[in-house]
Amino acid sequence: MSEFIAPRVLKGFRDYLPAAEGARVALIQKLEASFSSFGFVPIDTPALEYAEILLGKGGGETDKQVYRFLDNGNRDVALRFDLTVPFARFMAEHVDELYLPFRRYHIAKVWRGENTQRGRYREFMQCDFDIVGVDCASADADIVLTIADAMRRLCVGDVRIRINHRTIFNRFLQACCAESSGLAVMRIVDKLDKIGIEEAKALLVEEVGAETAEKVLRFIEPKEGFLETLNSMLTFCAPGDAMAMDAAHRLEDVYNIALVSGNAASLVLDPSITRGLDYYTGIVFETNLAEMPEIGSVCSGGRYNELASLYTSRKLPGVGASVGLDRLLAALEILGKTPRSGSGPKVLLLCGDLGLLPALHKVATSLRAAGVATEVYPEARKTSAQYGYAEKKAIPFALALDEDSLGRGVFPLRNLAERVTTVCESLDAVVAHLGGSK
Amino acid sequence: MSEFIAPRVLKGFRDYLPAAEGARVALIQKLEASFSSFGFVPIDTPALEYAEILLGKGGGETDKQVYRFLDNGNRDVALRFDLTVPFARFMAEHVDELYLPFRRYHIAKVWRGENTQRGRYREFMQCDFDIVGVDCASADADIVLTIADAMRRLCVGDVRIRINHRTIFNRFLQACCAESSGLAVMRIVDKLDKIGIEEAKALLVEEVGAETAEKVLRFIEPKEGFLETLNSMLTFCAPGDAMAMDAAHRLEDVYNIALVSGNAASLVLDPSITRGLDYYTGIVFETNLAEMPEIGSVCSGGRYNELASLYTSRKLPGVGASVGLDRLLAALEILGKTPRSGSGPKVLLLCGDLGLLPALHKVATSLRAAGVATEVYPEARKTSAQYGYAEKKAIPFALALDEDSLGRGVFPLRNLAERVTTVCESLDAVVAHLGGSK
Repeated sequence: MSEFIAPRVLKGFRDYLPAAEGARVALIQKLEASFSSFGFVPIDTPALEYAEILLGKGGGETDKQVYRFLDNGNRDVALRFDLTVPFARFMAEHVDELYLPFRRYHIAKVWRGENTQRGRYREFMQCDFDIVGVDCASADADIVLTIADAMRRLCVGDVRIRINHRTIFNRFLQACCAESSGLAVMRIVDKLDKIGIEEAKALLVEEVGAETAEKVLRFIEPKEGFLETLNSMLTFCAPGDAMAMDAAHRLEDVYNIALVSGNAASLVLDPSITRGLDYYTGIVFETNLAEMPEIGSVCSGGRYNELASLYTSRKLPGVGASVGLDRLLAALEILGKTPRSGSGPKVLLLCGDLGLLPALHKVATSLRAAGVATEVYPEARKTSAQYGYAEKKAIPFALALDEDSLGRGVFPLRNLAERVTTVCESLDAVVAHLGGSK
Repeated sequence: MSEFIAPRVLKGFRDYLPAAEGARVALIQKLEASFSSFGFVPIDTPALEYAEILLGKGGGETDKQVYRFLDNGNRDVALRFDLTVPFARFMAEHVDELYLPFRRYHIAKVWRGENTQRGRYREFMQCDFDIVGVDCASADADIVLTIADAMRRLCVGDVRIRINHRTIFNRFLQACCAESSGLAVMRIVDKLDKIGIEEAKALLVEEVGAETAEKVLRFIEPKEGFLETLNSMLTFCAPGDAMAMDAAHRLEDVYNIALVSGNAASLVLDPSITRGLDYYTGIVFETNLAEMPEIGSVCSGGRYNELASLYTSRKLPGVGASVGLDRLLAALEILGKTPRSGSGPKVLLLCGDLGLLPALHKVATSLRAAGVATEVYPEARKTSAQYGYAEKKAIPFALALDEDSLGRGVFPLRNLAERVTTVCESLDAVVAHLGGSK
């Protein structure tokens, strides 16, 4: 047996090496820029909470997916498994210190003991943004506009934000199915993208009979244009159904705001969108990339009536969305558009002689002051080894300075990919070449 | 008993409301900018690891401070309590996929079941940066220069990076104490800042007798100037002690690099700095703010011989530092220099009439396109309520647009702190006023 402990991570957990972590950081920075431009502010909550808070009072039969244990003080605690429940607790606890409407984003890790056979991870990052404290079209629209803006910043190409309204779906179901079948029908429709139309049809026939199944399929069939689809949906509800009409007005208002802000082309009314959860009570939506719809929704959410009803009598309606970071990163990689944080060093100062290190650090200090991220190779190794290092770290430029060039104040700047050396006559010329801010 | 679950966090855990989280995010962004400019790249590791990895093979008698439990698969796991041990495991596992020297930073949460009576938190963020794979002055210096650069970016005023070398201290002890007393003397000196010179003296006398105690106190007494102090320290070691001389050369090299990069004034050779841990084998340092030395070190670290010896036979020497984020945030608040992320919205579009919302969203879209973070108030509430909202959220400007102003294309822009309204004749004028990028 080895004297060493085998270095390894738990199944379902991941290390992020610099390239992967850099991409994740860059993605998050772009999302944060988008959230900020719409007035969302960041919050954070503990990773560990009372199990009762996270699982509710009836949380006796622990969900196998939750990391739950007794801490050293014998408290029944658990790692958060999403950001929604902690946010509900947060709002109930702090609503009087805050202001409403409260628009926040939260980007943080969550933990679930998922079955890793299905390619799921047990630790992953979630990214949620919500507007709490109002129930109005402008807030609904702001969520949609933020998604469109974020996707534009990420350069993922055209997106389809497929929106629907739970109430219209429910009113349609009420008009055509027995109440007991409503939820089952909704769940079948929710799986449509995964199981395909034929299997959905078979399941629907089994559930509600051929005639109603046919009606459901006609209801969810895509039509041309947002408002045309909306009108068609209303014809499936009871004539003059006031609740359905209200919901239709909400969707129309959201559409009009998308229209004036140049996002109408991205907003698709899709009667088949239901979102499985009971939680949602108003608009619901999913977001697909036009170039790769098959990866599924990269941002989903909707409106809910009561965020924090487990913890407070205060009514806190809200609307929000969750960005699928892992899915987006995978899509961006396939599209060849993985974001770079731009934070890697721009230039490596090669070291050919230990005695020159102070002089190299002096040059590095000047370059950094001019906004150029600069690294000094710390030892006098072979030039080829230092070039190899730069290549592995994707540093685009190198400066090979020796006593002669330092004495004469010239800077042979090498573009490592192009294998071309430009002799700069001053540090300012180096900075200009590297796109610094001096 | 209430029907609600009382919303609360575990003792020692904290929510971050937007102001606090915004400050933390802004602080981290400034640190990251500094790290990036010196070539450090980000990594991440799992929050949860095998207990054996984190605690070593002998981790049977669990440290009470560690959150350790059996997961649902009956694995003995624990939450990381620092970022050093996971980094050691990370390097042992991935060294062949990486490149050396490897300079990384890692900013992430850690968990310790600390005694909260002492104002300690059980969940807090650590921020470490290291250069692994070389043992040379340039790497040591880069850590020091990065600290100086980071503190400059944070505008905390002058800093004193108090540096020492473990070997000189050890050689001095060897020259004057019995070997068995060395560690005890080091620990007493390490506590000097906390216990004061008188108590330190009493403890030293008890440990090594009056004569040697006197010598220790003379050794650690601050002298004028870096090189003078270095010479004085050498006179306390055995004449011609080669190990002490090597260490002195290392400190001199580091000082010379600090000198040419304009940081000599911040670098103080302090023979009393020892850092308690056995771990360190070369330079050690602590960083104090000149304006508030009493809060203690805001960035500490040193050089170690073997990062990952628990997990691999590969020798991985390194040098690194840990930034005290909570301490820095507290200091910045006292100094009135809490960083703002600058990410809050710049202007609130007031809503006086629901029918105008599409027009308001159109204006907001244009402002955002020009780089101005803009929020639309989503409901038609009283103007005073909307002003109150802007104030609580620290939004500096408001635009009160109505049908008339929208029709005429004029924009009455109100500076909320100054209570002054400027009528802008175009959106470009609004953008110019708000400092957008158009």
